[in-house]
Amino acid sequence: MAADANRNEANKPDTNQLDPNKLVNGRHIGIIGAGLVGAGWAIVFARAGFPVKIFDAAPGAASASLSLIRSQLEDLHAFGLIDNIDGVMARMTAVETLQEAVTDAAYLQESILEKVDVKRQLMEELEKLTTETTVIGSSTSGIPASAFTQGLKLAGRTLIAHPVNPPYLVPVVEIVPSPDTSAETVSFTDALMQAVGQSVVHVRRETPGFVLNRLQAVLLREAWTLVEEGVASCEDVDKTIRDGLGLRWSFMGPFETIDLNAPQGVADYARRFGRLFQEIAHSRTHEQPWSDELIAEVEAQRRTMLAQDQLNERRAWRDRQLMSIAATRNRKEN
Amino acid sequence: MAADANRNEANKPDTNQLDPNKLVNGRHIGIIGAGLVGAGWAIVFARAGFPVKIFDAAPGAASASLSLIRSQLEDLHAFGLIDNIDGVMARMTAVETLQEAVTDAAYLQESILEKVDVKRQLMEELEKLTTETTVIGSSTSGIPASAFTQGLKLAGRTLIAHPVNPPYLVPVVEIVPSPDTSAETVSFTDALMQAVGQSVVHVRRETPGFVLNRLQAVLLREAWTLVEEGVASCEDVDKTIRDGLGLRWSFMGPFETIDLNAPQGVADYARRFGRLFQEIAHSRTHEQPWSDELIAEVEAQRRTMLAQDQLNERRAWRDRQLMSIAATRNRKEN
Repeated sequence: MAADANRNEANKPDTNQLDPNKLVNGRHIGIIGAGLVGAGWAIVFARAGFPVKIFDAAPGAASASLSLIRSQLEDLHAFGLIDNIDGVMARMTAVETLQEAVTDAAYLQESILEKVDVKRQLMEELEKLTTETTVIGSSTSGIPASAFTQGLKLAGRTLIAHPVNPPYLVPVVEIVPSPDTSAETVSFTDALMQAVGQSVVHVRRETPGFVLNRLQAVLLREAWTLVEEGVASCEDVDKTIRDGLGLRWSFMGPFETIDLNAPQGVADYARRFGRLFQEIAHSRTHEQPWSDELIAEVEAQRRTMLAQDQLNERRAWRDRQLMSIAATRNRKEN
Repeated sequence: MAADANRNEANKPDTNQLDPNKLVNGRHIGIIGAGLVGAGWAIVFARAGFPVKIFDAAPGAASASLSLIRSQLEDLHAFGLIDNIDGVMARMTAVETLQEAVTDAAYLQESILEKVDVKRQLMEELEKLTTETTVIGSSTSGIPASAFTQGLKLAGRTLIAHPVNPPYLVPVVEIVPSPDTSAETVSFTDALMQAVGQSVVHVRRETPGFVLNRLQAVLLREAWTLVEEGVASCEDVDKTIRDGLGLRWSFMGPFETIDLNAPQGVADYARRFGRLFQEIAHSRTHEQPWSDELIAEVEAQRRTMLAQDQLNERRAWRDRQLMSIAATRNRKEN
């Protein structure tokens, strides 16, 4: 029932009520956990004009994150993705107590360790430190909110808001309510995320891997098995995506892709090719875990493409590619 | 044994021997079947400077394809992807007999009906009309070459060269030898495809769906089931890819993506997340064919996003997006 209510609410948001500026109403956004993910979120909210307070349980870590954030803002500026580095920096404050970060916050983004007991402990502290007017989103990529909010009063105003790294370049965010999450919490988070430029995906039920990692998991399972069976090399699998399927998927999803690939649209596509695709998918029967030998083989193949000491340089290249795509998308929208 | 020989040969091409200009040696490329796929291939080869002869069994169809080709070249020109429309057109000739298209051709690209008996019949004609110096590639997206070449002398010089539409914008081509295909045929086709700007994927064994459609099939299976179970809408599945996973996959494949997503690379990634991803993938137990009700639901959802009479306009938009990506890639390479 709760999930259905969320779904309807999310599909028909009352935009009057949901102006995020009204709801935030001058209050700040609290970032809990100042690692890569938390720092990325701080940029997202501060870039959009909201005041941000950053906390990390490790003393000094929040302050230290500000220099990482500045260097990321410099990259964004170089690609024309932000105008004013100092203006964004001025909206961010590192604080040394959890209380400072969360008291009177409009929204908290939790990005701490991916362990259910650690998250549960944080939620018990937030139960004392926050009031009903603060919504809480967790960055977890796999733990359902119910696993660390059940029985707490804040369960109704807590959900998952799962980003992809870095969230200021890859806009998707999965919003996953627990059975206890209120419809208002879903609607508020949806409106807030849209206001800061994210692309909101509503996962209507707590399901392993949510949507994004489910899609990635099935593709990876097939990719690894193709290598294991000697059908293709890692690099050839990668080419198949980046010079084939991925080109279309970067601006259309899989449904729009097949909708355009049959004269009469997606139902026509299903009639023509549905059985074939089912047969192909079902022909995968070998579904063992990746063996040590297979992992060693894939590692060896990748290292011939990219030496381990080149990984960081290549990660910087990846981020420049994403910035270039973001800059292109911005130009098209303007 | 044949497949292994192919693999080794393909991995270490003798570039001296494999200069495609030397091998083509002034001979033409024959296009058999002048539908969308055949016309796309004609552009690929003519754009790269090779003379092309186009044949279609339907009288007049080859000539008619030239005006479609011209309009596609005009689009490419508008995006700066070709310099000289008339120069490319001048290298293409529509011919009215199979014999004209194939006699003394260096390479034939077959893109006729996806029916094994129709392809077999063509191969029997080619057995009479061509000599050992002509290599034959089939555009089929799913039929293995052995199904229509077994027992023919041309089996050794025939393979699958499966494109994505349109091949002049989406460069991937899957090369799939049959057990009879010679290593030289694989090497020649690899060199020729690279010479015309395609991105070659070696599928080392005849396997249902080759690589590309296997990867697409498993992702589609999960996408359809997520909609069926009410976990997400079609549009939210599409957003997850186009604003999330697909952004990275458009310039990196899935292996490079995970290689960069753990500090020490892909083996490190497998150790950290392999079990989790296996569990997610295995949690999919509902694997029925797409039901009529589900197809109707997906169709209805897509039609709220895009009316059926807008499909063609949206296809043109898709092709402009691909051209824009191709133009961006070209600028980076130059």
